[in-house]
Amino acid sequence: MADKIFRVNMTDLTTSTEDVPADWMGLGGRGLTSTVVAAEVEPTCHPLGSKNKLVIAPGMLSGTVAANSGRISIGGKSPLTGTIKEANSGGTAAQMLAKLGCKAIIIEGMPKGESWYNLHITTESITLNEETELIGKGNFAVVEAVASRMDDKHGCISIGQAGELKLLSANLSIKDPDSHVRSCGRGGLGAVLGSKRIKFISIAPTDSKVKIADQEAFTAANRAFTKALVDNPISQALGQYGTNVLVNIINESGGLPTRNFTSGQFEGHEEISGETMYDTIVERNGKPKHNCHKGCVIQCSQVYNDAKSDYKTSGFEYESIWAMGADCCVDNLDHIAEADHLMDDMGIDSIETSVAMGVAMEAGVLDFGDGAEVCRILKEEVATGSPLGRIIGCGAGNVGRTFGVTRVPVVKNQAIPAYDPRAIKGIGITYATSTQGADHTMGYTIATNILGVGGSVDPLSSEGQVELSRNLQIATAAIDSTGMCLFIAFAALDDATCLPALIDMLNARFGINLTADDVTSLGMKILKTERAFNLAAGFTNLDDRLPEFFSEEPIAPHNVVWDISGKEIDTFWDF
Amino acid sequence: MADKIFRVNMTDLTTSTEDVPADWMGLGGRGLTSTVVAAEVEPTCHPLGSKNKLVIAPGMLSGTVAANSGRISIGGKSPLTGTIKEANSGGTAAQMLAKLGCKAIIIEGMPKGESWYNLHITTESITLNEETELIGKGNFAVVEAVASRMDDKHGCISIGQAGELKLLSANLSIKDPDSHVRSCGRGGLGAVLGSKRIKFISIAPTDSKVKIADQEAFTAANRAFTKALVDNPISQALGQYGTNVLVNIINESGGLPTRNFTSGQFEGHEEISGETMYDTIVERNGKPKHNCHKGCVIQCSQVYNDAKSDYKTSGFEYESIWAMGADCCVDNLDHIAEADHLMDDMGIDSIETSVAMGVAMEAGVLDFGDGAEVCRILKEEVATGSPLGRIIGCGAGNVGRTFGVTRVPVVKNQAIPAYDPRAIKGIGITYATSTQGADHTMGYTIATNILGVGGSVDPLSSEGQVELSRNLQIATAAIDSTGMCLFIAFAALDDATCLPALIDMLNARFGINLTADDVTSLGMKILKTERAFNLAAGFTNLDDRLPEFFSEEPIAPHNVVWDISGKEIDTFWDF
Repeated sequence: MADKIFRVNMTDLTTSTEDVPADWMGLGGRGLTSTVVAAEVEPTCHPLGSKNKLVIAPGMLSGTVAANSGRISIGGKSPLTGTIKEANSGGTAAQMLAKLGCKAIIIEGMPKGESWYNLHITTESITLNEETELIGKGNFAVVEAVASRMDDKHGCISIGQAGELKLLSANLSIKDPDSHVRSCGRGGLGAVLGSKRIKFISIAPTDSKVKIADQEAFTAANRAFTKALVDNPISQALGQYGTNVLVNIINESGGLPTRNFTSGQFEGHEEISGETMYDTIVERNGKPKHNCHKGCVIQCSQVYNDAKSDYKTSGFEYESIWAMGADCCVDNLDHIAEADHLMDDMGIDSIETSVAMGVAMEAGVLDFGDGAEVCRILKEEVATGSPLGRIIGCGAGNVGRTFGVTRVPVVKNQAIPAYDPRAIKGIGITYATSTQGADHTMGYTIATNILGVGGSVDPLSSEGQVELSRNLQIATAAIDSTGMCLFIAFAALDDATCLPALIDMLNARFGINLTADDVTSLGMKILKTERAFNLAAGFTNLDDRLPEFFSEEPIAPHNVVWDISGKEIDTFWDF
Repeated sequence: MADKIFRVNMTDLTTSTEDVPADWMGLGGRGLTSTVVAAEVEPTCHPLGSKNKLVIAPGMLSGTVAANSGRISIGGKSPLTGTIKEANSGGTAAQMLAKLGCKAIIIEGMPKGESWYNLHITTESITLNEETELIGKGNFAVVEAVASRMDDKHGCISIGQAGELKLLSANLSIKDPDSHVRSCGRGGLGAVLGSKRIKFISIAPTDSKVKIADQEAFTAANRAFTKALVDNPISQALGQYGTNVLVNIINESGGLPTRNFTSGQFEGHEEISGETMYDTIVERNGKPKHNCHKGCVIQCSQVYNDAKSDYKTSGFEYESIWAMGADCCVDNLDHIAEADHLMDDMGIDSIETSVAMGVAMEAGVLDFGDGAEVCRILKEEVATGSPLGRIIGCGAGNVGRTFGVTRVPVVKNQAIPAYDPRAIKGIGITYATSTQGADHTMGYTIATNILGVGGSVDPLSSEGQVELSRNLQIATAAIDSTGMCLFIAFAALDDATCLPALIDMLNARFGINLTADDVTSLGMKILKTERAFNLAAGFTNLDDRLPEFFSEEPIAPHNVVWDISGKEIDTFWDF
């Protein structure tokens, strides 16, 4: 059976399946969500109004046995940034939806009443059921309820209290194979699902498989692809220490934003480093290695236990640890883990919320370093939607405006993540030009600026950064469409066998003949589609800028400022 | 002595006087503030950062005996809208500064420390003095302190707690002849003075007079001008009932936005009408007629006493009464007067704050109609900068974003005032296209749409509204430069003797030869200067739009929506 579009109309509470239009046939993941949003959403609409849509799409290879192909993309107009938005995540949903023959779910309209709904998807039907019991509950309660009402093989995409409250940093949580959650984190799309009054989407398991046009070629290509991933030294480091291996590396580079972006190094870096985290995990019988979806061969996730060796959090990422750690000066991993757990449960972006907390610290709302107070505010204020909780839960830009703070690290109102653009200039180009607001994953120049992957570009020079970011953003847009985890990029950049094997898999899956150039063209087309949406929403080149404090306040230890001109930034779009 | 620019540099805490550049010589009021801001402020700068400037300029005729010429303009980049901003007001400051030979005060830079300052201006000197005693106090305490430290003849421009807290709706208060205050209300420029850490500007009285080039011609022109004002029937109605005469008129038209813009008529309109207010004032020994500055012959202000006949508020305007009344469904004039008094004292825009309160009511923060709770929130939350107070004090758009409300009546993030654009379409064009965010005073089409002044344009038709708004916005930009109160427009539109007399006064004052065409050209030039600033700040035509709910939700009693297309709105700028 050919893949279908699953359409859910919340205004009249109907569901339907549609054939996939020819234009969308060769797309998946971000390529598909951005194409649908650009085609069907009025760019100037209110993101929390009835005209916005939420689009959920497994990647092109999701549901196959291809290594690391279990990413799901969720798109819409972002209530945080006002731009087009795609956020992707691991978990089990992408593979399950792909096996159910779902090319994409499009959720549109808005119910008139105050009821909440569960969208339930099986091989036979797509149904909307009223939900009452789980309203006001966190994501873990939802995952548990799905397991107890159905069984623990069901998939789940849900919002916590943050999404119900329509907080602008609310994310979507995707159940992982261990019944914990992964997040489509950035840009507040959880508030969009909340505005549609859907608390969770449950997905029934199936024995169906996705169709592979040329099974033999596929298997061979996957073998080569997997080997490239497994052999890559960065994959290996990620497997050992997780992404948090970066704390010491970025601190050493002088680009670890500290104390709300007033220094590039954090005194407490050792306490929150990947190495310390690894030792702590081992000591407490956690899991240093863990996968967010079946088929991942990198396993950068981990299970972090508390001092009593009870589960505390998993998918404990560098960016979250940096944000709550260095940026808020909290040098206690247990406080950070507790905060991470709370944010996962209420369903809120850990980067945005932690950076917002740093701005609140600068405003004097709480003290830098006070991890206990951070946890109290998350639990008692943000999750309950108190006024302070709403201010913080609506993001760093909102905290800045509301408290009159001028040092507010955001681009297009989205918080700048874990790499200071003054000391690592390539990533500044990505923050400035990304169609999605500041987002390191959109063009991860750290690879080349710091890790020496894909060549080498001096992080402190302005030379070559635009081209670096452009090439990576184009490649990323394509990778985000395949269902592949972005971490395949390290192998793809340095191992000549990796990218051809990926393309071979795409061709074998669909019976097509893509070349490397076609993949590049796809990436370019996605970026231009997204950019056109943003321009039609009222954005201009002047939105592709970093906040002025980066140009005015030199950052230690290099004492550098952001010095790439607007004119040079604008050459990003010359392709 | 020729007029001078008074420059105040808060970074190094110095003051100086400068000759007036030739380009600025023929300007005053808004024409001058907008010209200075466009020339000296980087359009993309942070409005609360060191690069923004606050420019204070008396009008061209301020300080003379010309009737109604005592308006002061204050300009800068608005922290609320991000656009260029001019807010003007009566009070004594314009006339006093003009007599001191001050063409404009330009306040720039930002001090490093935590100290607050008083800027003191006399005939001999311009000095900055540290201020401690009045920090945290309201405007009335400042006015009293100026009187007791110096004498009550001193003028005063101050901020209350809202400006100190850098709330985005903070205004600037100008002492009036009775030691009450008038407000440069809109766009949050009080937060800009707060960011410069100036609590108040005190102005010493002087016996000097402004120079008149041709005294005889000036006196004759002023006589004709004054007669035109005094004879005008709208001037007379404003003198009797104040601007609040409009409650019943606009309610009758079906354009009185009620219950957060969900109806065009308010059941409690009689209770809050100008007629009821007049009777209440008379009964309580208040003053139904009162002038905000010396030389006003319209006297639309009043003194409203409480039930014990003690002073409660003055300058009790239709727009404030509408906002706290109809829009929040508060049908008790004493609650509205108390709220008005509190907002005057803390120094916050009564339109923005009341509309924000209406959005908060829609969000369920408090009940529609609960005037007592409104007053409690103003006093205990907004004035103290509690989290809820900051949310509300940062304006209607901020409340909408923070609470996830989609029916948020703002343009360029500034609250839409007292006339519904669905039922009175001309004013919708003004809201959409004004360089300053939604602001009825920028092109008051109510005159022609409702009051039959300057011809007649059907308020419910889309025909002719763009041209009407354009002509009025051009005329208003010129009037706002003269130091004249906008209410001279009623006479200027309908009495052929009024505008020539005004031009004769300008010519007699400066020894120049302006024609009516020159005045129109000045208005056009101001609008284009302001528009150019906004475009350079990142605004586009797409910002010249009303919120989408106006096109989707018909409003009673006419059951009309906003139906003027973006394309038609954009023809506004064809001049």
